[in-house]
Amino acid sequence: MSTSLEELRKRLDTIDESVLRLLAERQDIIRQVAETKRKTGVPVYVAGREQEKTDRFREQAAQLGISPDWAEDFLRMMMSASRANQSEATFPSATPEPKTWLIVGGEGGMGRLYAELIRKSGHQVRTLDRNDWLKARALTEGADVVLVTVPINLTGDVITRIARFMSPEQLLCDFTSIKAEYVNLMLQAHDGPVVGLHPMHGPDVRQVSRQLMVVCEGRQPEAAEWLIRQFELWGMRIKRADADMHDRAMHLVQGLRHFVALLHASFMNRLDLRPEDMLDYSSPIYRAELMMTGRIFAQDARLYADIVFSDAERIRMLTDFLGHHTALAEMVRTGDKERFIREFETATDFFGAFGAQALKESGYLINRLADRFG
Amino acid sequence: MSTSLEELRKRLDTIDESVLRLLAERQDIIRQVAETKRKTGVPVYVAGREQEKTDRFREQAAQLGISPDWAEDFLRMMMSASRANQSEATFPSATPEPKTWLIVGGEGGMGRLYAELIRKSGHQVRTLDRNDWLKARALTEGADVVLVTVPINLTGDVITRIARFMSPEQLLCDFTSIKAEYVNLMLQAHDGPVVGLHPMHGPDVRQVSRQLMVVCEGRQPEAAEWLIRQFELWGMRIKRADADMHDRAMHLVQGLRHFVALLHASFMNRLDLRPEDMLDYSSPIYRAELMMTGRIFAQDARLYADIVFSDAERIRMLTDFLGHHTALAEMVRTGDKERFIREFETATDFFGAFGAQALKESGYLINRLADRFG
Repeated sequence: MSTSLEELRKRLDTIDESVLRLLAERQDIIRQVAETKRKTGVPVYVAGREQEKTDRFREQAAQLGISPDWAEDFLRMMMSASRANQSEATFPSATPEPKTWLIVGGEGGMGRLYAELIRKSGHQVRTLDRNDWLKARALTEGADVVLVTVPINLTGDVITRIARFMSPEQLLCDFTSIKAEYVNLMLQAHDGPVVGLHPMHGPDVRQVSRQLMVVCEGRQPEAAEWLIRQFELWGMRIKRADADMHDRAMHLVQGLRHFVALLHASFMNRLDLRPEDMLDYSSPIYRAELMMTGRIFAQDARLYADIVFSDAERIRMLTDFLGHHTALAEMVRTGDKERFIREFETATDFFGAFGAQALKESGYLINRLADRFG
Repeated sequence: MSTSLEELRKRLDTIDESVLRLLAERQDIIRQVAETKRKTGVPVYVAGREQEKTDRFREQAAQLGISPDWAEDFLRMMMSASRANQSEATFPSATPEPKTWLIVGGEGGMGRLYAELIRKSGHQVRTLDRNDWLKARALTEGADVVLVTVPINLTGDVITRIARFMSPEQLLCDFTSIKAEYVNLMLQAHDGPVVGLHPMHGPDVRQVSRQLMVVCEGRQPEAAEWLIRQFELWGMRIKRADADMHDRAMHLVQGLRHFVALLHASFMNRLDLRPEDMLDYSSPIYRAELMMTGRIFAQDARLYADIVFSDAERIRMLTDFLGHHTALAEMVRTGDKERFIREFETATDFFGAFGAQALKESGYLINRLADRFG
């Protein structure tokens, strides 16, 4: 009996090796696709093409007796690796002639990531970092676009300083996570075209393809169209947004999230419940939450402090949040379970159909986490 | 040029179809493995075997020029699907003769899930649900084990009622998420062997293989060893735990997590920031958080209320949490950034090396989420 198990395992190993060979072959073809796309100026990521391919793959899977959902997971992994491989190569340029970019904050994580993308698209990149201010005037001269990507607490100063060296035909833009205030500041400091940008990802992504770039209009939007086209050629999704709406959302995404992570971690410390021990008592979903809290504390304290304390509006929102907590905690203190149920049902109505999507997406995450680390 | 792109895409389609065929073939062999394992009594999941296979696969990938990390992700998905397929079949039994199980709460999600597993392992299953109490005495008679898996607010009553019908040779156990209180109650209500259990997953998992089962000793632990061996044969990981330590961890995992989810959702409602709109401003990590909050509101309010208000200790912990928030919010109100940094650094020290693991695991999640739903 156990010999037969050994035989079956050998057959599995042979199959897995064949899969690996096909994946290597796939990678090779993807490199050729990337080269062809670069020559013809086709973006890395085209939504319609992937959907069409996915639908066909699901059908084929069903015919072979494989779960279509599961097959789609595989295909998405293969396609994602394919985009990553394409991103290792070069990109098409959005302009017939190369543009000159000055990246202020060029030695930071985001500055380095984008400098590489820009170079791979055939443009010229100059970088200016904290020790280069003596060269600022020379570096600014002749640049087509000046991109400010520095820590948020320096952004205001840096915009004011660099704009002094700019002339009205040059495009000024920034990557800061607060937009209304800094788009206004750029408009005051610079007389030429202005656009506010916020890439919705960190510097450690494997690829910017399919990542979101928020674009807030400043002045002379037509002067920034080539820039946005370049983001699209890298495969990014573009969200044109109102700066105020963006900022309100960011108070929640950045301010509240990071503050709550600190609350969570410091409360664990107070209860003397160590994260390693918690893993022994974690459902997959709590494990995911613990990892998302923990990741913050593997990073720089000052960076997060600057994000949480970025502006008065955000601090006001966090103060409101304490008021909200105090009101809801009253029902816990008094054991008012019926009120909890009413509040819960109001939240259910507010989330509406999103709840079903959330159940599906988080279910997928839980399964992947269980596959990988369970 | 575009013809050439079409040709390359056709070659990709051919490769993808071959991968799919191999996956189908793999599924077929896995069914045979499951059958062999069942006959020989080998567990579905054997840690050493998967690790050995993973190491070899990574090496092969590297030789073929494929990223070993990526190849491992791919293999883990194949192996996880393989465990799922094995779970569709039957399982080995932990005992030479079939045992008779009475599941109290047999119509609930967990009751149904485990009833199926028990049947697939060749044991007899009886179920008792809320309308079957007239038959309770008859159903209890002759059962080897009585497993209580009912909503937490009913657990105490149900244990007391069912134990009246039990004799001292029968094993009593429960699945409730609070252990000290209910293990004590079982010890008082029943004179025979007792074990407290807590499966660390919900009823919607695709498989229990690799899921965690917490085991808290009650009385005559040797009488429960076959039961625990059966969980192992389903591929579960066993954590033998102190009931008090388990409960303290659960206050955080269940009580705090669900309360904070309600805080988050109702605060979004108050700010009129709808989840669908938030997706346009979400980094992958916030998207994951939003999905994990949202999933709660696709489920039953009363169930969560019972979990949050499960006992006095948990309510005390949640009240302490408000005190903790109030203290930390003071630094936000006064703009005391330096104190935020100190608190953050204390949390960093407390998390220690776990931070690096968290960065890795959450990074994996982010990538998978971006592949699948980005």
